[in-house]
Amino acid sequence: MYRSHTCGELRIEHVSQPVKLAGWVQTVRKFGSITFVDLRDRYGITQLLFPEALNPQLQNQPLGREFVLQVSGTVTERSSKNKNIPTGDIEITVSDFQILNGSKTPPFTIQDDTDGGDELRMKYRYLDLRRNLVKQNLTLRYRVNRSVRNFLDSRGFMDIETPYLIKSTPEGARDFVVPSRMNDNQFYALPQSPQTFKQLLMVSGYDRYYQIVKCFRDEDLRADRQPEFTQIDCEMSFVDQEDILQNFEEMTKHVFQEIKGITFNEPFPRMTWDDAMKYYGNDKPDIRFEMKLVDLGETARGNGFKVFDEAELVVGINAGGCSEYTRKQLDELTDWVKRPQIGMTGLIYIRYNTDGTLKSSVDKFFNEQALQLFADQCQAKPGDLILILAGKEERTRKAMSELRLEMGERLGFRDKDVYKPLWVIDFPLFEYAEEDNRWVARHHPFTAPKPEHIHLMDDLSQYAKIKANAYDIVLNGTEIGGGSIRIFQRDLQEKMFAALGMSKEEASHKFGFLLGAFEYGAPPHGGIAFGFDRFCSLLGGSETIRDFIAFPKNNSGRDVMLDAPSEIDQVQLDELKLSLLK
Amino acid sequence: MYRSHTCGELRIEHVSQPVKLAGWVQTVRKFGSITFVDLRDRYGITQLLFPEALNPQLQNQPLGREFVLQVSGTVTERSSKNKNIPTGDIEITVSDFQILNGSKTPPFTIQDDTDGGDELRMKYRYLDLRRNLVKQNLTLRYRVNRSVRNFLDSRGFMDIETPYLIKSTPEGARDFVVPSRMNDNQFYALPQSPQTFKQLLMVSGYDRYYQIVKCFRDEDLRADRQPEFTQIDCEMSFVDQEDILQNFEEMTKHVFQEIKGITFNEPFPRMTWDDAMKYYGNDKPDIRFEMKLVDLGETARGNGFKVFDEAELVVGINAGGCSEYTRKQLDELTDWVKRPQIGMTGLIYIRYNTDGTLKSSVDKFFNEQALQLFADQCQAKPGDLILILAGKEERTRKAMSELRLEMGERLGFRDKDVYKPLWVIDFPLFEYAEEDNRWVARHHPFTAPKPEHIHLMDDLSQYAKIKANAYDIVLNGTEIGGGSIRIFQRDLQEKMFAALGMSKEEASHKFGFLLGAFEYGAPPHGGIAFGFDRFCSLLGGSETIRDFIAFPKNNSGRDVMLDAPSEIDQVQLDELKLSLLK
Repeated sequence: MYRSHTCGELRIEHVSQPVKLAGWVQTVRKFGSITFVDLRDRYGITQLLFPEALNPQLQNQPLGREFVLQVSGTVTERSSKNKNIPTGDIEITVSDFQILNGSKTPPFTIQDDTDGGDELRMKYRYLDLRRNLVKQNLTLRYRVNRSVRNFLDSRGFMDIETPYLIKSTPEGARDFVVPSRMNDNQFYALPQSPQTFKQLLMVSGYDRYYQIVKCFRDEDLRADRQPEFTQIDCEMSFVDQEDILQNFEEMTKHVFQEIKGITFNEPFPRMTWDDAMKYYGNDKPDIRFEMKLVDLGETARGNGFKVFDEAELVVGINAGGCSEYTRKQLDELTDWVKRPQIGMTGLIYIRYNTDGTLKSSVDKFFNEQALQLFADQCQAKPGDLILILAGKEERTRKAMSELRLEMGERLGFRDKDVYKPLWVIDFPLFEYAEEDNRWVARHHPFTAPKPEHIHLMDDLSQYAKIKANAYDIVLNGTEIGGGSIRIFQRDLQEKMFAALGMSKEEASHKFGFLLGAFEYGAPPHGGIAFGFDRFCSLLGGSETIRDFIAFPKNNSGRDVMLDAPSEIDQVQLDELKLSLLK
Repeated sequence: MYRSHTCGELRIEHVSQPVKLAGWVQTVRKFGSITFVDLRDRYGITQLLFPEALNPQLQNQPLGREFVLQVSGTVTERSSKNKNIPTGDIEITVSDFQILNGSKTPPFTIQDDTDGGDELRMKYRYLDLRRNLVKQNLTLRYRVNRSVRNFLDSRGFMDIETPYLIKSTPEGARDFVVPSRMNDNQFYALPQSPQTFKQLLMVSGYDRYYQIVKCFRDEDLRADRQPEFTQIDCEMSFVDQEDILQNFEEMTKHVFQEIKGITFNEPFPRMTWDDAMKYYGNDKPDIRFEMKLVDLGETARGNGFKVFDEAELVVGINAGGCSEYTRKQLDELTDWVKRPQIGMTGLIYIRYNTDGTLKSSVDKFFNEQALQLFADQCQAKPGDLILILAGKEERTRKAMSELRLEMGERLGFRDKDVYKPLWVIDFPLFEYAEEDNRWVARHHPFTAPKPEHIHLMDDLSQYAKIKANAYDIVLNGTEIGGGSIRIFQRDLQEKMFAALGMSKEEASHKFGFLLGAFEYGAPPHGGIAFGFDRFCSLLGGSETIRDFIAFPKNNSGRDVMLDAPSEIDQVQLDELKLSLLK
């Protein structure tokens, strides 16, 4: 037996018990002729006291940081207690010890405020994982996993594993492919999600399915995207949208209760996609604060100010209480919207001074009465500051959405300990892909149009108006999940494929199995998938999902610890009948 | 709301309640002017009664097998009750119905004794999954999954996800590889198991890890092997072999208790690998019956019978009570051992007749006294039959092992409802790979030799004698799990790689991260992995794991439902800088 207790469990009531501990040396301190060691494991830290008698042994086998140590001894009450740790009342008076393994000096300190940079910690991820912060993150992830499972189990959902080696059906994101050795010149694909399988399971009658499952997308990696990521994937039969929203709202509440001790007594608010775009400029509003977007077009145009007159969109927000912003602060905000990521040419402001006067950067074109109109529209009052952007519709809306978030941040409205979930509903079925010059599925090609909009699918000019029973769950401005009611009729699915520009042959080649399944009694069904990495990171109060993944990849899709991907042997290539192009 | 109840929950106490059900039409029967329909869902079957008044509607919309139907009606007591199903006391008198989806006639019947062949059912797997048998299998799998998780959770094991896109380190089985688009001419590999990651997690201090995880091996598929399969993967730190055996014996008992209601009061028996080979001829003995192998070499040789004299091994079993086997039966057994899969040239028998006389197929060479010696060695008594094989050692032992199982089968000793678990321990560290003319790791290169055998690693001639603290858990003659105590010292790991013929450069290229990790305080650790598919199939009393996988592949590694693998677009190949060789 290597240990009788962990390093986190001994208390004052264990005093005088003989114990055996094993763990890592966190620190070694000499205090006169006595040596103190903090011994660490997954469960905590326990102080060890090496009495003078062990000094000869310690001289022969000196202890260093991160050494793996096993000690026998007796629990004793500490003279100076440490109230900061649960084991702080006691220490172990060591009678015997054994070094189980040594350690080189770690390349960075194993502490919350480590001195190791990102790349270094990725390379030595096995050491980074020892840090308390990372351990807490992975523990939280594990707890969320259990909490989700317990909830879904209790609701009659069945965890059913779906395959990883499937068929490549590029549509939307790019597939990772896997050459097949047994089937010449053919490839499997790794699933972007188990979408079609969970639908087949519905056809098979497994009316409540879930899986916490890895998914794969070979996309260019923006910050904080991983080529492999984890989904909480769910599907239900004989349900409408309301059933799904209810069920997964309850799941989310259950997780918040268990993990954060937060109770949501009210139903989550719901907002249509149209309203989200109109009032927040994006489809995942952060509703921890208001500061809604206001369309100022009518008031703005026709006053001889070219910037407004030529703009597709003039949009403002009311930064409440900011009328005292200095010139310097405003210049800095202007620079902020001019950055390439935002891409505006300028920022217009109207100060609503505390004395009731109005002052703007466009006083040349607008007198105080005109400015008052803007202020009224933005529901501004003395002490407020109105910020206005004007330009091309899409870019300007997006820019204002970003500016709103930035102002929310600056004004302290985006407290990561405040959680504001939101359902965004009634998503459009299609969106126009400028680069491909065609309509693509907003969610995916299996999402059903609202029944009352099906007839619009016959008229390309009406595509933008077609809405779906598709929904996202948004938390603090981040989408944590999304889903839809699915198509379950063969003819409608074929119509959808055709609308997306897929020929009958292509549709049948790629999705023949699904179209076939729809002919044998497919029930009405729908589902949702949560981004598990993201959900965990939000629950953990972090921006980066990477901190919540045991072995993440960097922005080039590399695992720098493994040094993967890497070259493979010629014999492997030969067996796969592949040759590499330079 | 699509339904108020499922098709499995209505009872006599619900009589006169208005209800709404949805499900699949199992059968339609006309009875005079009344129509009866059995409506099926995941939870059961409920009888529907369509009164005469609905006949016009039924004529307009005739119901067929596997139609998806929604009905409103009232629960009524049945006049002729069906005691075979839980809902058999009631039926629903339908007031209104709606066909939610139609169905073509299924290509095979959705019944336990379906008329569909293997290939057809694989192609229409979504229909096969509707069959009760398959549904029970998947439900059992889900229950085992939960049972395992609950046990491991309660023991402080943490579920930690490890990556799927890793580094190719071919060693043992062949890797599936994944070309990387972002890293020219480089490949990821899919994990054959999370072995090195779970060891790194031990180095990181997560002292109890588990995962129910997909693994991948690109091997030629023998019957009932899948290219992707699921493991219950576990690892523990600061443990010795005894801790691991105890823990996972308890897990196995827990699962048996929960899933099968079977209690094992005694500890699982343990057998050394040497004994398993000696007494059962293989390393996964079916101990539901004895019929041990007996080495008859000494008695057999030197009597002028060339077959015995020239044999490396003469081995017998006592088929108790079979002395009355007819000539025909014996000829048939002889043919059985001559089949290419077994590969023997003949079978020798000795009948121990009930009258105490002995009669054999080698009476020419052995008199009754000599035959009595054989009988004594085999502990045979009147009424028994001794079967003897002779030839090359390995083939003969293997053949006798198979013959023993065959006789066990014929004698009814292999009842699938009787479960006899067994630990096989003290596996050899190495085994000799004839085809490669070198020593390979019996388990894997991370398995530690027994400390007292480490010194033998310096002498190639001693390799066969080196044993490891490696163990398998065997159930009814099938290995359901295996593991070992791991190497945790860099120098020993390097020695092991060298023993396997890996150069320092190769070892460092493939496993540098692990060797590196061992330098920073690696704790003693070990683990085990259960074959989840196999474990489930045994618990379900089936031989084929395929029945316990929702979407299995066939023997060519194809998913015939999806038609995968398949060709991919040229643009995909171009992006990956790959060209195909014919």
